[in-house]
Amino acid sequence: MAKADYQLIILGGGPAGLTAGLYAARDRLKALLIEKGALGGQVLVTDWIDNYPGFPEGLSGFDLVEKMAAQAARFELETKYAQVTGLEFSEKTKKLTLEDGETLTCQSLIIATGARPNKLGVPGEDELTGKGVSYCATCDGPFYKDQEIIVVGGGDTAVQEADFLTKFASKVTVVHRRDQLRATKILQEKAFANKRVEFLWNSQIEEINGENGVDKVIIKDNSGNKSEMAVTGVFVLIGTIPNNDILPLDQLGADEFGFIQTDEEMRTKVPGVMAVGDIRSKTVRQVVNATGEGAVAAIAAEHYLNGLTE
Amino acid sequence: MAKADYQLIILGGGPAGLTAGLYAARDRLKALLIEKGALGGQVLVTDWIDNYPGFPEGLSGFDLVEKMAAQAARFELETKYAQVTGLEFSEKTKKLTLEDGETLTCQSLIIATGARPNKLGVPGEDELTGKGVSYCATCDGPFYKDQEIIVVGGGDTAVQEADFLTKFASKVTVVHRRDQLRATKILQEKAFANKRVEFLWNSQIEEINGENGVDKVIIKDNSGNKSEMAVTGVFVLIGTIPNNDILPLDQLGADEFGFIQTDEEMRTKVPGVMAVGDIRSKTVRQVVNATGEGAVAAIAAEHYLNGLTE
Repeated sequence: MAKADYQLIILGGGPAGLTAGLYAARDRLKALLIEKGALGGQVLVTDWIDNYPGFPEGLSGFDLVEKMAAQAARFELETKYAQVTGLEFSEKTKKLTLEDGETLTCQSLIIATGARPNKLGVPGEDELTGKGVSYCATCDGPFYKDQEIIVVGGGDTAVQEADFLTKFASKVTVVHRRDQLRATKILQEKAFANKRVEFLWNSQIEEINGENGVDKVIIKDNSGNKSEMAVTGVFVLIGTIPNNDILPLDQLGADEFGFIQTDEEMRTKVPGVMAVGDIRSKTVRQVVNATGEGAVAAIAAEHYLNGLTE
Repeated sequence: MAKADYQLIILGGGPAGLTAGLYAARDRLKALLIEKGALGGQVLVTDWIDNYPGFPEGLSGFDLVEKMAAQAARFELETKYAQVTGLEFSEKTKKLTLEDGETLTCQSLIIATGARPNKLGVPGEDELTGKGVSYCATCDGPFYKDQEIIVVGGGDTAVQEADFLTKFASKVTVVHRRDQLRATKILQEKAFANKRVEFLWNSQIEEINGENGVDKVIIKDNSGNKSEMAVTGVFVLIGTIPNNDILPLDQLGADEFGFIQTDEEMRTKVPGVMAVGDIRSKTVRQVVNATGEGAVAAIAAEHYLNGLTE
């Protein structure tokens, strides 16, 4: 068997992938990080991050990514911008096919392809993301002190976070397209008992308006009637989609939603293949634990390469 | 039952505890962090940290701790400096006894008491810690490019890291007090085959010398003969000791070495009690995954308090 091109390839350049790359580069592994778009992943479009430890005043997602990328580059992590279209684990050497037909081989692989929030797909949503439109209550809730906001959704996350967000917001309106919630009963009871949570049933957001921040939304009910609501924040909590298009889920092991399952050392079912960050099956998706997982996976790769583990 | 003093108490103010505190404070839990010494834990005595993501040029352990503490303080995390002498989990409300006899109660508890390296206990060791004396090869290895260094120990970590450190150091001498290694055979073979790793058997470090960095060590063999060796680094890899003095290990669940076992959400066997950072039973002990665990535990506490999990 020919020698692999790399000891380690890292798929995806968000905080998890960049940290894996930092550790691999410091450990002098022959490693390559492949990113299909721009380094940073979802963090790149995060306006302000207050809960990544080490930055007392917070910083923009753009700045945090830039710092992480510069740090990995300082230790000479090789980076390639390309779209991977195929993965083959049939041999001990893992094979990646790129969009232009090029193939790359590696002995170990860290999957850090991330996830993305399910979007409403309405006018104003993309433009105001990070400026009033949010997909994470833990991340952005504290920015909405004494403000009136909307939560979109009817599942566990939406209902739980609606209740949670009243720690900050003066009023939270849950906009749900059906006439009842899917959420667990105890969460529903808690939200119904919360005087600062209101429910708008059989309704959908049709448009989000505002210049540099959200001013109001346009809502349409199931009969077609439209109304306006003045709010400064819209939390869209209708699910997270794993970026797993090219991943052989059966081989790797995945949960029912398509997120990759691993052990505590981030190892998948395929020897030498790890998964980290938002693509992993887990309960908490934050920058601070994505980075931790990246470090753990790089060390797991090192151990795998040393023939310690299979 | 009387209302608890706090919804959450965090025991220990290193990176794991401070991050749990940051998340708890942002989540507006009534939370208290208790630290017996100075905030920061082991990081405080770490001279330079190059592998905490977000600081391209690295920073001192002191600076990193100061930033993390300032960030938690910005969200008004309450902090108390006290020595906890007793813990009681017999009721749903957890009870802590402090050295001065005061008692505090809480509904949930995050244990972040950390661990400490086993030390040689020789002159010069403490003074030169972070200035040539290190307890972590992953952290400090890259600082010793083309230098001659010593590794003390004969177990898995010592032998594996001796081999690893030759990625940087020109020569690594393993000083071991016996005439054979305890390490796993495959690790021994790898180290024996590495031309840049030498072994000094039946020997112990008696003294570490230098002003602002390590210059040399004095070595004594088992017959009492002394010799000097000029080196710039001494990696003491003879085990890690969990700070578990006050912890009821049987109740919490611990591994054979006294580290607390948890599930992926950092939960111990006692409902509402989490453990994070170096006190946890795990393979990788780095700042970057300690912080991630702190965040996960704070969110687990929030869920516990919401009555979601038992």
